[in-house]
Amino acid sequence: MIARILTPGSTLGIVGGGQLGRMIALAAANYGLKVHVFAPDADSPAFDVAAQTTIAAYDDAAALRAFVGSVDVVTYEFENIPRETAEILAAGAPLHPSAHALATTQDRLAEKTFINDLGIPTAPFRAVDSGDDLDRAIAAIGRPAVLKTRRFGYDGKGQRMIRAEGPVDRSAIMAEFGGAPLILEGFVRFEREVSVVAARSADGSFAAFDLCENEHRDHILAVTRVPAAGIAPETARSAIDIARRIAEALDYVGVLAVEMFLVREGGSERVVVNEIAPRVHNSGHWTIEGALTSQFAQHVRAVCGWPLGDAARTGGMAVEMHNLIGAEADGWAELLARPGAHLHLYGKGEARPGRKMGHVTRLIP
Amino acid sequence: MIARILTPGSTLGIVGGGQLGRMIALAAANYGLKVHVFAPDADSPAFDVAAQTTIAAYDDAAALRAFVGSVDVVTYEFENIPRETAEILAAGAPLHPSAHALATTQDRLAEKTFINDLGIPTAPFRAVDSGDDLDRAIAAIGRPAVLKTRRFGYDGKGQRMIRAEGPVDRSAIMAEFGGAPLILEGFVRFEREVSVVAARSADGSFAAFDLCENEHRDHILAVTRVPAAGIAPETARSAIDIARRIAEALDYVGVLAVEMFLVREGGSERVVVNEIAPRVHNSGHWTIEGALTSQFAQHVRAVCGWPLGDAARTGGMAVEMHNLIGAEADGWAELLARPGAHLHLYGKGEARPGRKMGHVTRLIP
Repeated sequence: MIARILTPGSTLGIVGGGQLGRMIALAAANYGLKVHVFAPDADSPAFDVAAQTTIAAYDDAAALRAFVGSVDVVTYEFENIPRETAEILAAGAPLHPSAHALATTQDRLAEKTFINDLGIPTAPFRAVDSGDDLDRAIAAIGRPAVLKTRRFGYDGKGQRMIRAEGPVDRSAIMAEFGGAPLILEGFVRFEREVSVVAARSADGSFAAFDLCENEHRDHILAVTRVPAAGIAPETARSAIDIARRIAEALDYVGVLAVEMFLVREGGSERVVVNEIAPRVHNSGHWTIEGALTSQFAQHVRAVCGWPLGDAARTGGMAVEMHNLIGAEADGWAELLARPGAHLHLYGKGEARPGRKMGHVTRLIP
Repeated sequence: MIARILTPGSTLGIVGGGQLGRMIALAAANYGLKVHVFAPDADSPAFDVAAQTTIAAYDDAAALRAFVGSVDVVTYEFENIPRETAEILAAGAPLHPSAHALATTQDRLAEKTFINDLGIPTAPFRAVDSGDDLDRAIAAIGRPAVLKTRRFGYDGKGQRMIRAEGPVDRSAIMAEFGGAPLILEGFVRFEREVSVVAARSADGSFAAFDLCENEHRDHILAVTRVPAAGIAPETARSAIDIARRIAEALDYVGVLAVEMFLVREGGSERVVVNEIAPRVHNSGHWTIEGALTSQFAQHVRAVCGWPLGDAARTGGMAVEMHNLIGAEADGWAELLARPGAHLHLYGKGEARPGRKMGHVTRLIP
């Protein structure tokens, strides 16, 4: 891919107006770029820090065309962008990451097939489009297992457990999903969850942040710790190498995150890929203070055709990032007073349960 | 002064749309605040990162009233705000720093008198309103000396040297300034220029960043180094104590900078105050990466009635900040590629000579 190099003063288009778009916009502003945010909700947090905004639905072709005509490069903050939307965007300006990267990663079946084809392990999986498929998939994979929609799931939404014991009421289960294409995924007995947040440029250069260890609660990321503790350096290197191979195979431009399970069997340690996020990622928020280049700055650099920044940790310090979910953000005053706590709030109105309202990062000398 | 504590989601008003306003706005956004920027120029860099903008002249009373009616607290990025403007603002919302702090610091005569009244040394000075005053001032202070406008000077503008030798054509000199009130300041034989950037809250708490050493070129800040090298700890402490006394005497709320000369006489070292900037300051830009709390975040905390953050240096590292003046910003591509260089660009259009276009910070482990 030929890099198109933007000059400061150019306009970066961002599709999606949540906290990820907002933090990309803040990083872009730091480089003197103008930002145009496209999002359907007038209340979008990213609008507050954008030079231009468009309020329109993701399937509003005319609005998409006008938007993309006003920007020099376009990116997005979430992977659930319809294919038609991505095509309109890509027709109007360089789209990074590409429509191909989106198509591959927004469908769990395409994604896992792509990963396995690279010789990289995932949980066992089978496509499920009917009750018969479900029976066959359970026979092949065993129970417990997780049945998921192939597309448009996030934070544990669009999935349900198939327990190890008891009857499987296949009609009831299939009805729950209302005919959406599904995938059955086997369980991986993992010790912990880790992720690699990394960037790749159009010229093929690649830079990964240190391996992150992630703790989830109720399917939502709660804590990220870096470096991941008690993991052999060669395991961390192999995790980063997996991310590099995935990015190369996608001819990827921008920041991506690869979520993985750390599996310990006998005396040996290995990683199994869970999923790819073709975007900046919650497990990379620690990089704002914790790394020499934040994931947001790195993403901006990659999509602008600029050299990637140094991904090393700030002063070699360890870093801990806690999400503020729902009412946890009500503790902002105490967090502001906590020595060494870097508080980030996303400017969202209502602190609904499960809603990511902010995060707090601490560097540990 | 009673602290009024804002909640995240509140709106911070910023008067002035340059790079300082822009960086305050970015820091405010990080805390989930909305920002409303008031500036006369449609091209203002701070507009690009503000949720709301008002384009109007600083003496447009109706626009000022509408603006201040839309915000929860109001601050500014420059001290040359007319008294009437400050009064309109203060009538509509809490104004931090106060109109009194502005009035004291925007007039060189009032400022130096105030500082001397605290028992803090400055260069010798005399008010000059006529040719006779100029003669008397030269007789008292000696030559060389600098004749300056009392108000509205910055970056070396509004001043001229009175040389040590040769005739003094007092009518020609007075005519140059067109009748503006003036001040003659004696020279201080200084070894180097230093500054204290510090914050004070309404509750009286105070936090100073480490003493900065500043290098000017053509009257414009070129480089800031922290910590200031080769200065005794007690000198640095006394410099910070001076800033604390000034902030207390002004009942100051927000970040201020005190520019000082380091004077070495015989074996002893002391500081002499040059001027007070009642705002965030160029010599504090290094704090974005170099301190646990940036000067911009600290200013936001102070004006919102929040606890001040930790002003310690990140990982105890030394920091160097270089301004990018005029065409120096054309080197952005090389700076982006330089390992460990934190590049900031302000989104200004034309790189005119002497214009501050950005800065670059490096942490030195």
